Amino acid sequence: MLSKKNCFIGCESDYQSARMVLFGAPFDGTTTYRPGARFAPKRMREESYGIETYSPYLNKDLEDINVFDAGDLDLPFGSAQKALDQIQEFTHKILSDGKIPVMIGGEHLVTLAAVKAIKRKYDDLYVIDFDAHADLRDEYLGEKLSHSTVIRRVCEVLGPKKIFQYGVRSGEKSEFEYAQDNTYLTKFVIKDLEQAVNIIGDKPVYLTFDLDCLDPSEFAATGTPEAGGVSFEELRQAAATLGKLNVVGCDITELCPPYDASGVSIALACKFLRELLLSI
Amino acid sequence: MLSKKNCFIGCESDYQSARMVLFGAPFDGTTTYRPGARFAPKRMREESYGIETYSPYLNKDLEDINVFDAGDLDLPFGSAQKALDQIQEFTHKILSDGKIPVMIGGEHLVTLAAVKAIKRKYDDLYVIDFDAHADLRDEYLGEKLSHSTVIRRVCEVLGPKKIFQYGVRSGEKSEFEYAQDNTYLTKFVIKDLEQAVNIIGDKPVYLTFDLDCLDPSEFAATGTPEAGGVSFEELRQAAATLGKLNVVGCDITELCPPYDASGVSIALACKFLRELLLSI
Amino acid sequence: MLSKKNCFIGCESDYQSARMVLFGAPFDGTTTYRPGARFAPKRMREESYGIETYSPYLNKDLEDINVFDAGDLDLPFGSAQKALDQIQEFTHKILSDGKIPVMIGGEHLVTLAAVKAIKRKYDDLYVIDFDAHADLRDEYLGEKLSHSTVIRRVCEVLGPKKIFQYGVRSGEKSEFEYAQDNTYLTKFVIKDLEQAVNIIGDKPVYLTFDLDCLDPSEFAATGTPEAGGVSFEELRQAAATLGKLNVVGCDITELCPPYDASGVSIALACKFLRELLLSI
Amino acid sequence: MLSKKNCFIGCESDYQSARMVLFGAPFDGTTTYRPGARFAPKRMREESYGIETYSPYLNKDLEDINVFDAGDLDLPFGSAQKALDQIQEFTHKILSDGKIPVMIGGEHLVTLAAVKAIKRKYDDLYVIDFDAHADLRDEYLGEKLSHSTVIRRVCEVLGPKKIFQYGVRSGEKSEFEYAQDNTYLTKFVIKDLEQAVNIIGDKPVYLTFDLDCLDPSEFAATGTPEAGGVSFEELRQAAATLGKLNVVGCDITELCPPYDASGVSIALACKFLRELLLSI
Amino acid sequence: MLSKKNCFIGCESDYQSARMVLFGAPFDGTTTYRPGARFAPKRMREESYGIETYSPYLNKDLEDINVFDAGDLDLPFGSAQKALDQIQEFTHKILSDGKIPVMIGGEHLVTLAAVKAIKRKYDDLYVIDFDAHADLRDEYLGEKLSHSTVIRRVCEVLGPKKIFQYGVRSGEKSEFEYAQDNTYLTKFVIKDLEQAVNIIGDKPVYLTFDLDCLDPSEFAATGTPEAGGVSFEELRQAAATLGKLNVVGCDITELCPPYDASGVSIALACKFLRELLLSI
Amino acid sequence: MLSKKNCFIGCESDYQSARMVLFGAPFDGTTTYRPGARFAPKRMREESYGIETYSPYLNKDLEDINVFDAGDLDLPFGSAQKALDQIQEFTHKILSDGKIPVMIGGEHLVTLAAVKAIKRKYDDLYVIDFDAHADLRDEYLGEKLSHSTVIRRVCEVLGPKKIFQYGVRSGEKSEFEYAQDNTYLTKFVIKDLEQAVNIIGDKPVYLTFDLDCLDPSEFAATGTPEAGGVSFEELRQAAATLGKLNVVGCDITELCPPYDASGVSIALACKFLRELLLSI
Repeated sequence: MLSKKNCFIGCESDYQSARMVLFGAPFDGTTTYRPGARFAPKRMREESYGIETYSPYLNKDLEDINVFDAGDLDLPFGSAQKALDQIQEFTHKILSDGKIPVMIGGEHLVTLAAVKAIKRKYDDLYVIDFDAHADLRDEYLGEKLSHSTVIRRVCEVLGPKKIFQYGVRSGEKSEFEYAQDNTYLTKFVIKDLEQAVNIIGDKPVYLTFDLDCLDPSEFAATGTPEAGGVSFEELRQAAATLGKLNVVGCDITELCPPYDASGVSIALACKFLRELLLSI
Repeated sequence: MLSKKNCFIGCESDYQSARMVLFGAPFDGTTTYRPGARFAPKRMREESYGIETYSPYLNKDLEDINVFDAGDLDLPFGSAQKALDQIQEFTHKILSDGKIPVMIGGEHLVTLAAVKAIKRKYDDLYVIDFDAHADLRDEYLGEKLSHSTVIRRVCEVLGPKKIFQYGVRSGEKSEFEYAQDNTYLTKFVIKDLEQAVNIIGDKPVYLTFDLDCLDPSEFAATGTPEAGGVSFEELRQAAATLGKLNVVGCDITELCPPYDASGVSIALACKFLRELLLSI
Repeated sequence: MLSKKNCFIGCESDYQSARMVLFGAPFDGTTTYRPGARFAPKRMREESYGIETYSPYLNKDLEDINVFDAGDLDLPFGSAQKALDQIQEFTHKILSDGKIPVMIGGEHLVTLAAVKAIKRKYDDLYVIDFDAHADLRDEYLGEKLSHSTVIRRVCEVLGPKKIFQYGVRSGEKSEFEYAQDNTYLTKFVIKDLEQAVNIIGDKPVYLTFDLDCLDPSEFAATGTPEAGGVSFEELRQAAATLGKLNVVGCDITELCPPYDASGVSIALACKFLRELLLSI
Repeated sequence: MLSKKNCFIGCESDYQSARMVLFGAPFDGTTTYRPGARFAPKRMREESYGIETYSPYLNKDLEDINVFDAGDLDLPFGSAQKALDQIQEFTHKILSDGKIPVMIGGEHLVTLAAVKAIKRKYDDLYVIDFDAHADLRDEYLGEKLSHSTVIRRVCEVLGPKKIFQYGVRSGEKSEFEYAQDNTYLTKFVIKDLEQAVNIIGDKPVYLTFDLDCLDPSEFAATGTPEAGGVSFEELRQAAATLGKLNVVGCDITELCPPYDASGVSIALACKFLRELLLSI
Repeated sequence: MLSKKNCFIGCESDYQSARMVLFGAPFDGTTTYRPGARFAPKRMREESYGIETYSPYLNKDLEDINVFDAGDLDLPFGSAQKALDQIQEFTHKILSDGKIPVMIGGEHLVTLAAVKAIKRKYDDLYVIDFDAHADLRDEYLGEKLSHSTVIRRVCEVLGPKKIFQYGVRSGEKSEFEYAQDNTYLTKFVIKDLEQAVNIIGDKPVYLTFDLDCLDPSEFAATGTPEAGGVSFEELRQAAATLGKLNVVGCDITELCPPYDASGVSIALACKFLRELLLSI
Repeated sequence: MLSKKNCFIGCESDYQSARMVLFGAPFDGTTTYRPGARFAPKRMREESYGIETYSPYLNKDLEDINVFDAGDLDLPFGSAQKALDQIQEFTHKILSDGKIPVMIGGEHLVTLAAVKAIKRKYDDLYVIDFDAHADLRDEYLGEKLSHSTVIRRVCEVLGPKKIFQYGVRSGEKSEFEYAQDNTYLTKFVIKDLEQAVNIIGDKPVYLTFDLDCLDPSEFAATGTPEAGGVSFEELRQAAATLGKLNVVGCDITELCPPYDASGVSIALACKFLRELLLSI
């Protein structure tokens, strides 16, 4: 008769029996343009009760897989490094217990911490990145740790040619030049996923979805909206395809709830997370 | 020199000479997620003066057909059954006078009342339903009358295989199973309308447009937005195609104005209603 | 390191040891003007972490009193009577266990159910009502159960001259006439609380705060805002004064979060609830 | 059973029997800062159904006096002079028929047209102006007709010392200097209305309420909000006091609905208009 | 260490060395539906720092071309003709100095002034117009100068068959009839740009982008949104194609910032302006 | 004819001749609840053109005093210490040049940097702080540098009993206890400013206005709104009174524009800054 829901819909497994562990990393401390991604995991949990647990796309139900929702990390403000350290430590624990971490950002920088933890366990790790922005600057306003440098940092952790990037439509000229030698970057669209599938094979892979890869018409509530993006349907299909790889971790980032006047960006993020969880 | 408009643009016929009667059914009493569809008919009338009466798609003008705008029903709050009774009674009156009812919801449940009235006059009635949700639950939170059960109830009124559903992308697994025996359900998209056209032939048909079938990028202001929907252009073409059938009634539902921060959902609904009126 | 808060701040007592039981009654089914009060208890829990548990007004801390937050009732939609029955039943259980019910609405009608349950235990019950509206109609749009009739219904339950009303500045002429014989009604302001204190003495009393008694400048997010209301400071002082009576239950109602563009109404409601809990 | 309301609540008299004629002047063409006052009369009519027709302040009811709501003037855009001419002409007609014009702006400039029409009939006309701004510039951006010059123009029509101004808290230094010789200007507050009452006596008087005289906390939705204003209660009392004079016309202006996120400004304007109509 | 940016990003050339001169024409005085386009140039400058100066579509950078941002014209309010005169005069000066004017509206009417100035220098001028509305009325509410008549007026300046129109999906029947003899009008879509390219050849051409040609899903913040529009990608490609013509001036109009709740319309306009500047 | 304003209204002095130097410190990196104060200085400059330069309260004009608007500091993200260092350095430079720094935050933490710079020049410095929150925690979420600890840090810089606090109505119990020995703290209201005036005498004093001291009804757009605050008029009078002291620097902080749906908070902040500048 009484309800006090505090997990993402259908993610009611306990930690022990869970195959995947969902957690929030509510950090947006280096966001330069429109802050607020910190609110994403909390708001997604609340609004997730507006969607169904069943996916007619995949004919699967969240209630039939085992996901534990661990809640949000209590991250400090004012220091990016300290926040990243906590995320890395918690991701490491999940991995140590033989589970798959699924992180809800926060800004895209949080991906760096998760990748670092996973790289320790899986040395031949690949990353597939969906993003409107190249995120390949060496520094931004004098800082090495920034949402604009995160894939550059990830690249330094993994070594060259371990990252596939899709949907990129913004960056400095030098970032696109850096990409030529260091990542597989597909401008503007999602296509030729087979290339990634073939190169990666059964090696471990981390999927990171910066949701600003979506077109702002479908997903306006993000820190730095960029016209000309991909559609929900394209991203959903990509998740379904790549979910068949040996996915050892994944995240979605850059939902910024304060700019979601109509609520449709949060609803889309919830639906995409359901599809992602069911695809892995 | 003075204006006190209180009808939908171009619907200035009197009742006697009208072929179609437009009316509002401002009921949203079973909406569980985001209420406010009650405001749709009033707001559409007001905002309709932002569109033209002429359709360049159909090369027709609202001023050349005869539509009477009857205003809104004064529906009670707190009892779904009483509201449905009033809607059914008024629809019956319009039919008795040999006119076509065109209803603006309100939530989708209002369709049940209209269908019941029409079924009394046209026993071999078909229904064509555009909707993001299957709406085929048997009950919802213990209630038989709900926006989530409305097509199930309509199905019970009409008998099996009298309903065509398009654009459905959300529901419980059991709803999709129910659909297999009881409706013609097309998932995700609008396609193969010819099948409906052929089966229905010249039999009477009721068209119900739950506007949440549209993608939230084009139509955010609805109670339960679902990513991955159809476009205005697809829906407009469907109305143009199906308008050639023997349409004996129709409705549009689930516009929820309080969530229309930019006003484009209301504007789209007005334009779609113009196209629908001109198509029938 | 991880947080998954799902109670109102500082209300972390267990049921057994609790003196007060907080619960949500998310019903707004008879709201005629602007619905959305259903979202109030959930949103207040979330936003309560923006205030402190310590009150510098009372020099007390929520962490030092025992409040259990039971969560929200799962109320049905489409039938006011069924919703009221569930509220009455749950209130009865709290009372049976010797605890004080503290309810967060929902619309003001929910007060009727709580009062009915309490009247069964405390026959000589008084009610003190803060409200912009008289709520003394006999029926509204043909319905006996409505947010506009609730105090009339409460009056019928308690008998004449058992209700004190403050801050009332809206109603039909006949409602003010009814008040003359049946309630103690103070128009516009809060004053002469001593009269109530003296008449009630140590008899049991229920406090109901329809937050629309506040001026819309301080509290805009309500279903039917009425200019010319009382201030937060006046209401806070009233709660502090009346909290010294033999309070056997209380509620706050009519916060409507969808209309809280700036978030200050929710924040005020959280702060007022803290003061109310600490005053009793 | 059906409603198609298109007048302000309770103003359902016909023209013949009406003592007062309410009309909208939806012009905001010289607004420099935040346009949108054009939407005020239409939105006020719609939202007026959220208030009661009965005033507990005055113990009177709109249904007991005779007001005809004439709707809105169809004013041209792009030329202030043409718009003013139409307003003047319509006001003249109302006066010729022996009725009292009550105008809803629109920006404050519309007052000039009404005053011109009334001055033709009542040569010894006084004006009482409630306003945050002096509106006494001689020109603004090279224009003589502007919301910033309107009281200067009115002053030229009436001659010196025929205007009382209250609540003024913004203007250029030269405007305050001009006021010393030409108007009775009270800075910041409403006080000493007796002075106006005594000087005017039983001479004809026009009341103009630029609603930005109110504090933005109570009334945010206006073109140029100015902190430090008067309260609804103060303005309501002023209307009650001055309504006893020989009022031959009045207006309320500068409600700008697009900036009313929470809807409380429109609601306040409706309530004030009710009080104003009942006071005259 | 300090920033006080007041030009569009990357447009930091001085006037002397500039090839293009960017300026704002913040006029929306004839807008009938939703005013606010006056705020567009200022808001675009501010928000332009959220995009990059480099275009991965064109592999060019704003910092490598010479654009001077002249700021906004101080246009009068209350008289459309005076505003147009100032725009025409300033455009004339830019042309006299051998530079290309790039104007940010304001409403679409401002295009008339720019075209008039350019026509004086280039007698065989063509215009290419992207617009949801035909804008071919002879007058609107009695006015010859209006956002609804602007292309009709331009047509009168240039003579018949000098204007290409794309994306038009709204207008009166008579406007479409007028277009048959006087413009090359493509309904609904952008296609067959080659026709325009071939007919115009190396003659001078003015490009005017009424941004309401875009679908409201991508661009909601405009005075009169019309469902069924073109995409950013289609418009961007059109600009890239037509930029190779002999472009002697261009504008973008009808961004209306007050209706951009999520900020994505302004961001899109900034990105489109970058692409347009880099295409010419 | 052209305008490209990029300074606060009326602050058009050059650096050399300026007595006061206005600058923005757009840092909000430790804000835990609602970020966005970073946008305050830029938005205040833009919106300042909605107020007059003349104050009818003080009968003074911004154009008659010498203020240079230096623009905003380019502060790094992700490290509070680095941001504070830059603010301290710039404040130091202003002081070295014999001018008075006037800072627009950003969050309240920026005050610490300014005070540190000023303390180096004026060893017997006093601080007067208007704030809803005590800001006297020793650390917050493990961080010493936070908007919740700023006055504690300032206290450590200045020594005990050098700070006067007004309007404080929120904090932990321990903060109020700390205040007893270390600051002069007035709860809830502004009163007895004479005490501060008498104790400080002609010693140097820094004024810091955390605008959340204002009641949320007048000032909703702040990171952590607290009901029960002071009014604009009270704060304005305090500034006028204290401006007569030997003010060697001042700031206003915690305006958070993204939560200013109606724009009235920004407008109030602009008007208060005008009064503050004219009072010193």
